[in-house]
Amino acid sequence: MFYHIKELQYHAKPERPDPIFARQLQEVIGGQFGEISVALQYLFQGWNVRGNGKYKDLLMDTGAEELAHIEMLATMVARLLDGAPVGDLETAAKDPIIGAILGGMNPQHAIVSGLGAMPADSNGKKWTADYIIASGNLLADFRANLNAESQGRLQVARLYAATNDKGVKDMLSWLLARDTMHQNQWLAAIKELEEKENVVVPSTFPRELEKQEVSYTLFNFSEGNESAEGRWAHGPSMDKLGTFNYVENPVPLAKKPKLKPAPDYIFNTPPSVIRGRDDQIPPSLY
Amino acid sequence: MFYHIKELQYHAKPERPDPIFARQLQEVIGGQFGEISVALQYLFQGWNVRGNGKYKDLLMDTGAEELAHIEMLATMVARLLDGAPVGDLETAAKDPIIGAILGGMNPQHAIVSGLGAMPADSNGKKWTADYIIASGNLLADFRANLNAESQGRLQVARLYAATNDKGVKDMLSWLLARDTMHQNQWLAAIKELEEKENVVVPSTFPRELEKQEVSYTLFNFSEGNESAEGRWAHGPSMDKLGTFNYVENPVPLAKKPKLKPAPDYIFNTPPSVIRGRDDQIPPSLY
Amino acid sequence: MFYHIKELQYHAKPERPDPIFARQLQEVIGGQFGEISVALQYLFQGWNVRGNGKYKDLLMDTGAEELAHIEMLATMVARLLDGAPVGDLETAAKDPIIGAILGGMNPQHAIVSGLGAMPADSNGKKWTADYIIASGNLLADFRANLNAESQGRLQVARLYAATNDKGVKDMLSWLLARDTMHQNQWLAAIKELEEKENVVVPSTFPRELEKQEVSYTLFNFSEGNESAEGRWAHGPSMDKLGTFNYVENPVPLAKKPKLKPAPDYIFNTPPSVIRGRDDQIPPSLY
Amino acid sequence: MFYHIKELQYHAKPERPDPIFARQLQEVIGGQFGEISVALQYLFQGWNVRGNGKYKDLLMDTGAEELAHIEMLATMVARLLDGAPVGDLETAAKDPIIGAILGGMNPQHAIVSGLGAMPADSNGKKWTADYIIASGNLLADFRANLNAESQGRLQVARLYAATNDKGVKDMLSWLLARDTMHQNQWLAAIKELEEKENVVVPSTFPRELEKQEVSYTLFNFSEGNESAEGRWAHGPSMDKLGTFNYVENPVPLAKKPKLKPAPDYIFNTPPSVIRGRDDQIPPSLY
Amino acid sequence: MFYHIKELQYHAKPERPDPIFARQLQEVIGGQFGEISVALQYLFQGWNVRGNGKYKDLLMDTGAEELAHIEMLATMVARLLDGAPVGDLETAAKDPIIGAILGGMNPQHAIVSGLGAMPADSNGKKWTADYIIASGNLLADFRANLNAESQGRLQVARLYAATNDKGVKDMLSWLLARDTMHQNQWLAAIKELEEKENVVVPSTFPRELEKQEVSYTLFNFSEGNESAEGRWAHGPSMDKLGTFNYVENPVPLAKKPKLKPAPDYIFNTPPSVIRGRDDQIPPSLY
Amino acid sequence: MFYHIKELQYHAKPERPDPIFARQLQEVIGGQFGEISVALQYLFQGWNVRGNGKYKDLLMDTGAEELAHIEMLATMVARLLDGAPVGDLETAAKDPIIGAILGGMNPQHAIVSGLGAMPADSNGKKWTADYIIASGNLLADFRANLNAESQGRLQVARLYAATNDKGVKDMLSWLLARDTMHQNQWLAAIKELEEKENVVVPSTFPRELEKQEVSYTLFNFSEGNESAEGRWAHGPSMDKLGTFNYVENPVPLAKKPKLKPAPDYIFNTPPSVIRGRDDQIPPSLY
Repeated sequence: MFYHIKELQYHAKPERPDPIFARQLQEVIGGQFGEISVALQYLFQGWNVRGNGKYKDLLMDTGAEELAHIEMLATMVARLLDGAPVGDLETAAKDPIIGAILGGMNPQHAIVSGLGAMPADSNGKKWTADYIIASGNLLADFRANLNAESQGRLQVARLYAATNDKGVKDMLSWLLARDTMHQNQWLAAIKELEEKENVVVPSTFPRELEKQEVSYTLFNFSEGNESAEGRWAHGPSMDKLGTFNYVENPVPLAKKPKLKPAPDYIFNTPPSVIRGRDDQIPPSLY
Repeated sequence: MFYHIKELQYHAKPERPDPIFARQLQEVIGGQFGEISVALQYLFQGWNVRGNGKYKDLLMDTGAEELAHIEMLATMVARLLDGAPVGDLETAAKDPIIGAILGGMNPQHAIVSGLGAMPADSNGKKWTADYIIASGNLLADFRANLNAESQGRLQVARLYAATNDKGVKDMLSWLLARDTMHQNQWLAAIKELEEKENVVVPSTFPRELEKQEVSYTLFNFSEGNESAEGRWAHGPSMDKLGTFNYVENPVPLAKKPKLKPAPDYIFNTPPSVIRGRDDQIPPSLY
Repeated sequence: MFYHIKELQYHAKPERPDPIFARQLQEVIGGQFGEISVALQYLFQGWNVRGNGKYKDLLMDTGAEELAHIEMLATMVARLLDGAPVGDLETAAKDPIIGAILGGMNPQHAIVSGLGAMPADSNGKKWTADYIIASGNLLADFRANLNAESQGRLQVARLYAATNDKGVKDMLSWLLARDTMHQNQWLAAIKELEEKENVVVPSTFPRELEKQEVSYTLFNFSEGNESAEGRWAHGPSMDKLGTFNYVENPVPLAKKPKLKPAPDYIFNTPPSVIRGRDDQIPPSLY
Repeated sequence: MFYHIKELQYHAKPERPDPIFARQLQEVIGGQFGEISVALQYLFQGWNVRGNGKYKDLLMDTGAEELAHIEMLATMVARLLDGAPVGDLETAAKDPIIGAILGGMNPQHAIVSGLGAMPADSNGKKWTADYIIASGNLLADFRANLNAESQGRLQVARLYAATNDKGVKDMLSWLLARDTMHQNQWLAAIKELEEKENVVVPSTFPRELEKQEVSYTLFNFSEGNESAEGRWAHGPSMDKLGTFNYVENPVPLAKKPKLKPAPDYIFNTPPSVIRGRDDQIPPSLY
Repeated sequence: MFYHIKELQYHAKPERPDPIFARQLQEVIGGQFGEISVALQYLFQGWNVRGNGKYKDLLMDTGAEELAHIEMLATMVARLLDGAPVGDLETAAKDPIIGAILGGMNPQHAIVSGLGAMPADSNGKKWTADYIIASGNLLADFRANLNAESQGRLQVARLYAATNDKGVKDMLSWLLARDTMHQNQWLAAIKELEEKENVVVPSTFPRELEKQEVSYTLFNFSEGNESAEGRWAHGPSMDKLGTFNYVENPVPLAKKPKLKPAPDYIFNTPPSVIRGRDDQIPPSLY
Repeated sequence: MFYHIKELQYHAKPERPDPIFARQLQEVIGGQFGEISVALQYLFQGWNVRGNGKYKDLLMDTGAEELAHIEMLATMVARLLDGAPVGDLETAAKDPIIGAILGGMNPQHAIVSGLGAMPADSNGKKWTADYIIASGNLLADFRANLNAESQGRLQVARLYAATNDKGVKDMLSWLLARDTMHQNQWLAAIKELEEKENVVVPSTFPRELEKQEVSYTLFNFSEGNESAEGRWAHGPSMDKLGTFNYVENPVPLAKKPKLKPAPDYIFNTPPSVIRGRDDQIPPSLY
């Protein structure tokens, strides 16, 4: 169950409106690695943990915090849109700044949301749960979380560099710090799980059932041997259960597949036609 | 540039058709973490590397291999669909096995693809590039790759457990082994980058510009202190630049936001109405 | 800012597992009118209210409650999936019940989420923010909310009728009651706004700027005059500013459009070809 | 069955081309609340009415009219795109107006549709049937329709304010008037159904089967009591079957959920690891 | 402008309900090549024709007819769903037929649409305008239309073979005939345009501006020379402007690309790290 | 199985960066008819051919080549993005060129991909497999391919006209030539199949089972008789099995459908209410 308080976790006040930057900032609200993604990803992972304890609690702590980040960003976007102009070509032609705004802002910020934030990215693409994962396997999912926080902090850093507004920078410096924490926390949790389970997910699948002769092999499918220089091509594997090796000229192990014809009721191209010979087949009624 | 040879990397031949399992197997072709995802993710990451060398080569090696995995899986699906029945309720009622097939198979495998594999997941959802990422930051992206291989191997393991067909199991044991390698290789590459760059992405963002007082703080936003027991709540941070701390009762740092009214030309609810007082406003023409 | 407590708002415990019903129940988690939709719709509407007061508070109250409903439903789905079987045709053939489960359950509940709830609907379609709206105009948005609660309660009622499980029915009876309240509350808020603003959204658009001669006209574009019998075809209009009238044989008011040819650099079909005369034009190099 | 005549329902001729405004106008063709949405929503609702009579006829009348509105808007967009320039940075740099156009127009209007309208919104997002609903319950659906016409008229009003072109304004004044009618007609139909059925959808679900003790309760999940001042928190409920009440400090009614472990064949994190104790588990082969 | 009459173009009455087949039939309503696709594709192509005449009229004739086909199919689906059961595992276990229905039907046909047709395909995926095209170039678009009618008739044929219901077969035999006409008509229109414009789209692009030395070359990028046997590998080209030729061992014509580093403010992996040498870079603050 | 070499099939080097054009060029990478579409369409068609021979080989040859085209375009986009500026309104206001770039470029090229190409179109919409088809019927699919190459070459021609950059034009002239070949090759393959199978897909459906009396009829559903002038309205049909005819005033052949009421457990509007009479029904508990 959730309680909301109306105060913000941190300040979200720009020095001045900037509808172009409002559009860009949407990326970290409703983009692939925006705050909606991490909020719902952590909450669903938390709800699906089978058993309680510190991992579930950590997920719920962080999921609830990310909801507060959506709130801060939505507030910031609404303020960046304060008094945003609308207009047509005539308006654009008269004033190059308004022209730049009309070209660069998301038109839906005026037409659809009435100068409010949207659950969408910087191209106006609405958020979709296709972005997130909760698999029931925590090591897999914490890696998803570490990735999300890495991509997210990278995007916030790029946005920080793209504005001169001190109020915006102040809020972004908060988000950068929180992403630093979140990367650190998932790294700590991953380390712990890897120590308990070994590093390959899922750790409980019996190794003897996989085709172990290629479990540590790098196949060189792209000409040039630069990749052979990497740690991944020689020495003990990271899971300490094998030794990396490098195959310079990989060959196929199975022959060309030949599929059986489909039954008549599927109305595929008839086998005689597929064979591509010149034996005419009667032109329509069989 | 790419060359194709028609032989398969590994065998893809089931003992017998099974249209229900064909549907399930689609998950690892065209699902969020299927082979199309990893193939295109690695290729786009590779094409976007700014500079050449071993990382780019590794990405291209692996991307090209994943194309071969799509091919193996597509072949397997087509064979699992050999002679799949079609039918209506009357047909289903007569034969419980056919009923089970009609209920459990993807109807598009008959109607749309003519007993062929589709670039779709186990619910028939078509693959989308929303699943993938190529950010230009290799540490971030290799974490995305490690996640993808972890989720992917997890799904293949679940599919392995769900079938008795020796041919299918044989092919899946190949994919499991390759995913073991791919997890190992991204782990090796990540370790190398972390040693060079430190662990927080992006490593080049100046730390003094983030709000460092909350860079290592766990806020307890979900009641209960189980998460305080974790490594992420005390001791030196994983990036070795700070010390984790735990805030049991997090408080807001900014006051309630109050947004300015929108201009008239946006036609939002008028401010007097929002204020929610009982001062009647004239009912339509202003 | 949000705080989470781990206790549930209401019970979410089925009598027994039922993976088929788990799939169906997903509709009211991640479907068009599921709990994710209402939660995020209310929160975004609340964040975007320009001014504070009772409407914003009501939105935040209800948005936060809907988060608790997602949590209850996610818990219920996980329990309905307890020990769900996996399997292929051979398994299905042996046991008709398992066959029914394999046909009727969402395969991603096993392969992808590891027996956890997903942010998806009953066909496994992931939730998308395309479902929701926050327009900045509260009367418009409260109508969206009333619609969402009406569709939502309708779907819950259908699910209630589709199960014999007392635990599931108990939880659904809670959701039905809450949807009763939420319909009532949006009706109350709508009534208040309509009294202040009149009933046509947006109320602040000057009526003299619309083509008032057709503001209360029903055009009969579908043969048969049954619709002329309705209240909407005669008597004073609902906004009390006009009189409904009925046009039995609507006619066009503008002539056939004729569009100008596109410039050469667009490479559309050349105008001479569109004219469809038989004047041959030279076959490729112009 | 449908007959088409080539004359337009109303004029759709701008004074001059304006590719930026063409992009914006797409919102009311192919956006969430554009004309494609209302056309197909009304038609599917009409086709699915089980029984004939005035409601079905009204739906078909209005659905057919909305097709004519798509046609008018498509014509207008094509004319606004007349002779639209294409170009690169060099072109943009030379002429600020062309720069503004290239920045502000939808590039697909040149590259993909060849200066024609698209079934897409103002961000170029293609229309999707995810936007619409036909539930079989007319009271629910007429509320969806009222919402759609409210959002739609709001968007048209915003577009009206954003242009100086008299031809565009003339057409929009037609659409505004028709949306006035359509809001009025759905209000009339809703009123009639509410009088027959009472206001809570679905009216036929037995009230004694819902958890009636919370059917009229406002839970205060967002700190602050402003919402307690609303009509929705005291007095008789809108359905006249209960009395609103307000709970200032809502408490959970069920305890923390604890989910059972998943079976081995799901390969989730093992229960011993989830418990988060320090009991080492053997690192890979079980 | 459109007029609707309530009579159907052709009969749409099944002998008996069949909710499983109702789901399958949705493919040709709201699937990639269903009737919504052809209706909206032809209408948008028609609205965008720049100039009037027979092509525009043909598009509008056929677009309007396809609307009538959606109507027939929607009616058929509603009837196939008459009295469809709902239920859970207990219900499924008792009666294998009901179990087959619950497994095989689209659950949204009960929960969401209330036994009505949906603008969706056989997997419940909602229709999207991503499926269609109107490019302004009629030869290109008529080829899209021919493809749509070919795929559409193929799917209807497969559905025809999958049912024993005489009423359903009767309606499908109508659709098959209409698709025969529509394939024939687009073939006729294509032939006419090809004779006027030559066969390569767009015909107005100056041929001397393309890299003509590879305009008729088949590159053998897949091992094996079977494709060299085709008409496309020798003899005069179909546009009669060149001669087909076959390159057995295609070679690259450009060298390996090397991309420049990104600016600092993009926070990509630093160039020194990409080079992959062992020169340590300082671990975080630059 | 696939091998990659790092050399490009053809040059992909612009004279100078141009982030606006980079955005436009994305259309032919990840748009509906971009290179990802043709690559995956041909590969899936090839993998699904049931039988080997020249058609399968041709599909694999061309599919592999299209992968090389994605690579060329991705390289070009990365170079067009070299050093792309980021910035806010203040930056835009100072320099009109930068303003034009910020308005016209895809913000995700900076924020998300770090100046790399994306699997997306010119509006930033990510590629989806909804665009492609592999039906098992080669004549149908080769028509899909011909359409894709026609739309694709049209778009490349429009892009060619939109830039002055000699390097970009050089690469596009290569793609134009390859699209000329690909249109020619699919035309040749189609011609061969049509000669073997006749022109209506699927050729194997027994013609006597379709409603042959309307197999060659043009129904005039759009007022005006221009379409009667076409070849499709008179003379022998293109399949040579019938004669085209024209029906000026098409009439319905079936009466108005009337659907049965839904069962109570569906909670649709009750039949008595639908009948629309004034017989009051009791207001909530039945």
